[in-house]
Amino acid sequence: MTSPKVRKLRDSIQQAKSISLIPVPLKDEILPGDSLSEKLATALRHQKIRLRSGDVLVVKHKVVSKTEGHLVRLSDVKPSRDARVWAGKCGLDARIVQLALDESRSVLRKKVVAGRGVLITETRHGFICANSGVDVSNVDGGEHAVLLPKDPDRSAAKFRAALRKKFGVSVAVIISDSFGRPWREGLTDVAIGVAGMKPLIDYRGKRDPHGYELHATAEAIADEVACAAGLVCGKLERTPFCIVRGVSYQAGTGNARELIRKRENDLFR
Amino acid sequence: MTSPKVRKLRDSIQQAKSISLIPVPLKDEILPGDSLSEKLATALRHQKIRLRSGDVLVVKHKVVSKTEGHLVRLSDVKPSRDARVWAGKCGLDARIVQLALDESRSVLRKKVVAGRGVLITETRHGFICANSGVDVSNVDGGEHAVLLPKDPDRSAAKFRAALRKKFGVSVAVIISDSFGRPWREGLTDVAIGVAGMKPLIDYRGKRDPHGYELHATAEAIADEVACAAGLVCGKLERTPFCIVRGVSYQAGTGNARELIRKRENDLFR
Repeated sequence: MTSPKVRKLRDSIQQAKSISLIPVPLKDEILPGDSLSEKLATALRHQKIRLRSGDVLVVKHKVVSKTEGHLVRLSDVKPSRDARVWAGKCGLDARIVQLALDESRSVLRKKVVAGRGVLITETRHGFICANSGVDVSNVDGGEHAVLLPKDPDRSAAKFRAALRKKFGVSVAVIISDSFGRPWREGLTDVAIGVAGMKPLIDYRGKRDPHGYELHATAEAIADEVACAAGLVCGKLERTPFCIVRGVSYQAGTGNARELIRKRENDLFR
Repeated sequence: MTSPKVRKLRDSIQQAKSISLIPVPLKDEILPGDSLSEKLATALRHQKIRLRSGDVLVVKHKVVSKTEGHLVRLSDVKPSRDARVWAGKCGLDARIVQLALDESRSVLRKKVVAGRGVLITETRHGFICANSGVDVSNVDGGEHAVLLPKDPDRSAAKFRAALRKKFGVSVAVIISDSFGRPWREGLTDVAIGVAGMKPLIDYRGKRDPHGYELHATAEAIADEVACAAGLVCGKLERTPFCIVRGVSYQAGTGNARELIRKRENDLFR
């Protein structure tokens, strides 16, 4: 005789399913005005992969900002005196510092650490990261700064709708960026735009196999998926897309703003 | 005619390899004194999976601490007056608060946030997390606190050696725990013990496809792998192991202490 509890456990064991992280590299560069879904379609054809309903498609923010033209030609940036002084002190590009300040709502830290200038800001969206997420890239033969998308949740929702139209599938979309963390070395990818899924799994009230209530507030599943995709979205190769297949996420309306802790609940500002 | 650069890029595209996150659930509970490699062997047989050289095996710290007997019977804990007062104020278990303080090197924050008592400590190992990572579990019919392993890097190395002996494979081992983060909601898993791999990939001096030097200090690959495994190591199911297959990590000596930012370089203490 097997108790229902044991049967349930056995079933869950037999159901143990793998998750696949499938990189989708590009042959060529994404440029302002390109269609992201067209570029993805070409890359998928080349890789002989199909997008399936239930997949999560992770896309690095840089290609999103590029297609949206959210770029600034560096030679057009006039850094302020403050930006020039600070940049000079740390050997940074004053134009990047200026853009980081322009893109920020507030500056959390501005300090030289181990000989490097570190500028931690709260972006207009509310993300806390280095240099407001401003990156440098070569576009059309000129040095450009790539800014974070203006509204990454909206970009994710638009891309998701385009994928549904183009491929007839219902997927979740995550736009990711590499952020540093306090207390720990190294960058990991986080979700800065989300569409089609709940970004948090709330365990409050749920119980573990012993009947203990799980106190953890929630699991940041969208960040976990973004971070996992970071293992294949290489920094040196041209792989801005990753299909994450087999994740048990909760489909529905959700956005990356839910992942931002409210200032009044944050102990480290 | 194809330029060497384009050829190289095409090659890298054809080589694009997926990563698999393979959950290894257990049929029964891990108890103090159990052999972790025996338990894993049974679970692998049941799942008809083989461990392969080059895999990363992620294991949740809780089962490591259990096999090592790093548990405390809650009824044996005598909380101090301070612990009782603070716990009473926030509706927490004073014994857990006492253990969290005992396991800490310093207290970073001790505050009531949104009606919940939050105690952020630096553990004896140097990790910064809530309640020094102290968990509650039912062992032998009595409530126990599960502490973090005494030396998670050593535990990882020992487990790795046992796997080599038992299965004849060379894998990397990561011991993980779920940590909260400043600024962002929800928990994600990080590496607290590492063996057989470099936990950081250093991109300093390397260049992107445009020849730009990548300024990011490093990628925390061990944390990325731990975080990815968190997608299958469910909080509600008994899945303490995850095989991560296909990751391009740098094999060799490495430990989780490298992931801890030095206090003097940390802007948020």
